[in-house]
Amino acid sequence: MNRIPVAVLGATGTVGQKFITLLEGHSWFTVEEVVASSRSAGKQYKEACNWKQPTPIPKEIAEKIVKTTDEKLNSPLLFSGLDSSVAGPAEEKYANDGHFIISNSKNHRMDADVPLVIPELNADHFDIISKQPYKGGIVTNSNCSTMFLAMVLGPLHQAFGVSEVQVSTMQAISGAGYPGVPSMDILGNIVPYISGEEEKLEIEPQKILGSYKDGTITPAKMKISAQCARVPVFDGHTETLSIKFHKKPTPEQVKKVLADFTGEAQKLGLPSAPSRPIVVHEEPNRPQPFLDAWLEKGMVASVGRVRECSVLDIKMVIMGHNTVRGAAGAAILNGEALVKKGYIKV
Amino acid sequence: MNRIPVAVLGATGTVGQKFITLLEGHSWFTVEEVVASSRSAGKQYKEACNWKQPTPIPKEIAEKIVKTTDEKLNSPLLFSGLDSSVAGPAEEKYANDGHFIISNSKNHRMDADVPLVIPELNADHFDIISKQPYKGGIVTNSNCSTMFLAMVLGPLHQAFGVSEVQVSTMQAISGAGYPGVPSMDILGNIVPYISGEEEKLEIEPQKILGSYKDGTITPAKMKISAQCARVPVFDGHTETLSIKFHKKPTPEQVKKVLADFTGEAQKLGLPSAPSRPIVVHEEPNRPQPFLDAWLEKGMVASVGRVRECSVLDIKMVIMGHNTVRGAAGAAILNGEALVKKGYIKV
Amino acid sequence: MNRIPVAVLGATGTVGQKFITLLEGHSWFTVEEVVASSRSAGKQYKEACNWKQPTPIPKEIAEKIVKTTDEKLNSPLLFSGLDSSVAGPAEEKYANDGHFIISNSKNHRMDADVPLVIPELNADHFDIISKQPYKGGIVTNSNCSTMFLAMVLGPLHQAFGVSEVQVSTMQAISGAGYPGVPSMDILGNIVPYISGEEEKLEIEPQKILGSYKDGTITPAKMKISAQCARVPVFDGHTETLSIKFHKKPTPEQVKKVLADFTGEAQKLGLPSAPSRPIVVHEEPNRPQPFLDAWLEKGMVASVGRVRECSVLDIKMVIMGHNTVRGAAGAAILNGEALVKKGYIKV
Amino acid sequence: MNRIPVAVLGATGTVGQKFITLLEGHSWFTVEEVVASSRSAGKQYKEACNWKQPTPIPKEIAEKIVKTTDEKLNSPLLFSGLDSSVAGPAEEKYANDGHFIISNSKNHRMDADVPLVIPELNADHFDIISKQPYKGGIVTNSNCSTMFLAMVLGPLHQAFGVSEVQVSTMQAISGAGYPGVPSMDILGNIVPYISGEEEKLEIEPQKILGSYKDGTITPAKMKISAQCARVPVFDGHTETLSIKFHKKPTPEQVKKVLADFTGEAQKLGLPSAPSRPIVVHEEPNRPQPFLDAWLEKGMVASVGRVRECSVLDIKMVIMGHNTVRGAAGAAILNGEALVKKGYIKV
Repeated sequence: MNRIPVAVLGATGTVGQKFITLLEGHSWFTVEEVVASSRSAGKQYKEACNWKQPTPIPKEIAEKIVKTTDEKLNSPLLFSGLDSSVAGPAEEKYANDGHFIISNSKNHRMDADVPLVIPELNADHFDIISKQPYKGGIVTNSNCSTMFLAMVLGPLHQAFGVSEVQVSTMQAISGAGYPGVPSMDILGNIVPYISGEEEKLEIEPQKILGSYKDGTITPAKMKISAQCARVPVFDGHTETLSIKFHKKPTPEQVKKVLADFTGEAQKLGLPSAPSRPIVVHEEPNRPQPFLDAWLEKGMVASVGRVRECSVLDIKMVIMGHNTVRGAAGAAILNGEALVKKGYIKV
Repeated sequence: MNRIPVAVLGATGTVGQKFITLLEGHSWFTVEEVVASSRSAGKQYKEACNWKQPTPIPKEIAEKIVKTTDEKLNSPLLFSGLDSSVAGPAEEKYANDGHFIISNSKNHRMDADVPLVIPELNADHFDIISKQPYKGGIVTNSNCSTMFLAMVLGPLHQAFGVSEVQVSTMQAISGAGYPGVPSMDILGNIVPYISGEEEKLEIEPQKILGSYKDGTITPAKMKISAQCARVPVFDGHTETLSIKFHKKPTPEQVKKVLADFTGEAQKLGLPSAPSRPIVVHEEPNRPQPFLDAWLEKGMVASVGRVRECSVLDIKMVIMGHNTVRGAAGAAILNGEALVKKGYIKV
Repeated sequence: MNRIPVAVLGATGTVGQKFITLLEGHSWFTVEEVVASSRSAGKQYKEACNWKQPTPIPKEIAEKIVKTTDEKLNSPLLFSGLDSSVAGPAEEKYANDGHFIISNSKNHRMDADVPLVIPELNADHFDIISKQPYKGGIVTNSNCSTMFLAMVLGPLHQAFGVSEVQVSTMQAISGAGYPGVPSMDILGNIVPYISGEEEKLEIEPQKILGSYKDGTITPAKMKISAQCARVPVFDGHTETLSIKFHKKPTPEQVKKVLADFTGEAQKLGLPSAPSRPIVVHEEPNRPQPFLDAWLEKGMVASVGRVRECSVLDIKMVIMGHNTVRGAAGAAILNGEALVKKGYIKV
Repeated sequence: MNRIPVAVLGATGTVGQKFITLLEGHSWFTVEEVVASSRSAGKQYKEACNWKQPTPIPKEIAEKIVKTTDEKLNSPLLFSGLDSSVAGPAEEKYANDGHFIISNSKNHRMDADVPLVIPELNADHFDIISKQPYKGGIVTNSNCSTMFLAMVLGPLHQAFGVSEVQVSTMQAISGAGYPGVPSMDILGNIVPYISGEEEKLEIEPQKILGSYKDGTITPAKMKISAQCARVPVFDGHTETLSIKFHKKPTPEQVKKVLADFTGEAQKLGLPSAPSRPIVVHEEPNRPQPFLDAWLEKGMVASVGRVRECSVLDIKMVIMGHNTVRGAAGAAILNGEALVKKGYIKV
């Protein structure tokens, strides 16, 4: 098929840059439009953007003129890295205009008619788009820390029934965007607080793991308690989990369920889908951001140290690339699923 | 009174250097002897030592000749930063010779006749020294991460009864000594594993919070589940806690009990005792190692973000200086308590 | 004598906070007034300030009401950490009103009638204040990197005549203030550029080392070529130097001149003067920011690795605490010198 | 052609691991043998190796049995990352046995009959192999910091004649191997000394830029003065240069010569040759390790901030990937050149 033209919204920001990096050479999509705030309007992308990726700006993007959110767009599919301060109404407007918005922002995530999708887990939730009042539609992916938590809880909930979760995170600075975290706050330091983060971790997984029927998502019933910290790591969110189950499994059973897991993204053969969504490590000191964040091009949830917990049932450490699988890569995978499942006619 | 001569064992290591730094100008003690491995024997301390403290070697120590563990010592009180690979038999030998050893090593901590003391919490445990077969005695302080956990659990257990604890740590590199953690492992990275650490955190608090009667320590009954990670922070261990109580308190009650707490160390007026052993922070993003590790000369446990937990009862973040209150400072405080309570005749 | 009331301008910024920290318990000065932008006006200092120092806000300062730069001040002596974007006119206004301003800002440093003073080197330059059109006066200290360069060049120029200097700096993030350098720019990275910094390093030392006669400062004649980089270090600027002399000395001669050096600040016995302004290290791997920045309470220039250079004559590494001796501490020392030399009647 | 079997010596070390990573999928070479110390002998590579690369061990390597340096090897071409403590005699032995050794070690670099080659600059020096007493031969690449310095000096010396160079380096921790630099030495710190490094930087470029005639290399005549520091950067050595020329060029002339430069490696179309060996940056704050170390797969020297120097003639900042172009990649490129130029019959 011809490559589908897509736009990147919030293209100059950290997530926007990652969209552009990940979409370079994509087999289905081609970035036709880059959109940012009026401050960047009319400039070439390379002039408007404070590029912070370790690979250069793709040549075909560098000289594109940045459009503002006021302009009409031509692409049917829009990947949005817009800041949450402006994303809400902008995404509605685009959806009204007939576009499909794949949003990384929190604004519409918890709306009753907006799917919050991880294609390995709940691709059936896409159907709720039909309930939306728009000509097009809005689809969201989860918060970056939620992504790895939900990915791991998904198959475990299916197999053993998850009832309670304690999670403590150590999150990378790239998650806060640019300029984001001042170096004086984090160099050799820990900040044990990220505004709004714990709240997302405590409610998003239940929606993702919820059941969809007749236009309604019924959230999964489980209690999640989160504590979130910022650490001096560039990319890669690490999370320690402790989980209570309805049917207590052994660590070996947990590892087998996780290692064997594949989902709809793998069945559909989506271009950005990792061959295995979850990698289980056996070494005692893994996963580590530096060594494991880029496994399967940054699209997996790494799991390690699965063992018994004396308070709940099972504890473990999980980790994944927060701006790839946790943000831009997640949205691209959602876009691929939408196309493959026929929601977007191209 | 005249200053009591003390020896520092393992004087060239990270904990040994901290002993020497903290004992500079101490009002009761004066470092008369420095002891290290045979590799350092006969050298001046400044030649034998790869000094890594941000203040210079005290002048009166710099040219002292390093003694080996084979030599007879004159000081009644020995502060030991010996590595656990050699500490066990060495400490017994010194105790046999009539010295009091205040040890930072794990070797004898869990022995039935060895007190594991935090003077604010269980100074009454010192009495068990009388059960030891030595002319002198061995006294231990806890693991560095245990220190802050036990300090916080102590008054809460007294007030509300602690039944279950989840703890996830983010531990500074100085805790691993020198050369310790290779920079390639930790610069911009997290290592979610510290050998043997979780085991200590899961059993030491119960001994410290246990009751002493007739020469026997009965451990407190509580389940602790720990996950320990190394982070790129120089000094200061951060821990996220979630606690279940027999009588569930409100966050305000928890904060009041912690902020009001003082113990035997404060009553005795020990020179190294902080005025408050626990500092409760109200700012949402505290405690932080860089900002709070040196509160009260590094001798306090900082507590912040006390709030309800949807899985257990109360969650919070705690932090403290791992080589001061968590190691050398803890041992010095034990030494002071021993002297003040009359165990050491000087 | 009674303690002299002083004001701190720009009191909520990084340099302002350091002023307040260093002035706590000062034997001559007492902070009576704290001044900041209108955004902070009328608030208590502790509310207005995002405190980033490792020691708490001094109690007597925490609840002071912050004044704006529009208000009249009562203190005869003002320490200014105002941002250079506003410092110029504000400092003139205060001087007109009869205050003595000790400024850390670049705005007036190179003015013909403004002394740029390091009390160890050119305390005689203070006399140029008499040429100022103000009822009070303006005195400046150097850029933070200049401080350590000038301090080392001073005695060497006196002894051997400096003709050419190459300097390459590795500067700490605290030099950029708060929020300052984004963590995504500097964590595990080098930024080989600091706006305006090289220009200051290339002209300020000549003014400081210049001769004062009849109301005119004649700059020293030497060529300085600078390259400045930002590095992931919290406090402490490191600089590699290579120097060409009129009379080429041996490394031993250089070390002796530096180690023996004292200046007017030491002769006057100023409270903040280090006993030795320059510390010469013999270890091959020193000075280092972590180990040496706090020598003599952060008020010295550390020098190491003095050796022959095959291109110019002598090379070496220098380092010092950029926000203490390089900023707030330098200004306080200038204030002390002004008082001791009778420029300020109190 | 069939892929040439190669061996990697010192295969478990940092440079050895980089060899294995870079040779994965190489179009000319295939790793048949992995060799390490007797400690690793007989183990599978994945068991013997503490793998520290951000991509997994290639599958075809993971289970290879590690050979010791005592065993006979079958591969004609050996890439050596052996530690300098053992590399000298081992390399001679292999050369005697008929192998070609491409060594990253310093031991034979300055030998009169050993070529020290950067294929862009002095591929003609390979001919000196004929003077070696071995059935095979030894070829070396430069020290990691020398690589970028020599690459930049090469075309400039050709065009304008370089007479004097000042260089000050900021070197990444990966250059010291594993475990290498202790984290307590470098986290948030600078160590202004690297043993033996300055000496290499001061003599290797002259050999590389020397002229080869009749079996003799006559070193280029230029004075180089180096100061080397270790900084908390993972990969990427940064160097500030100041250069004096026989014919002083303008900054624009310097940039043009550097940007236009290509050499023998490009003419021969070697698989690992970058399309441009030198990338000239125009942004004022580049090059930076994080953003630029991986340009052209880590095989270029980045140059930025080319400007006039008031002491010598021209100053600039250079940077490159120390374990790719500065070590393993340089050796592989030498191996490719040897094959292409017919020194190795395969």
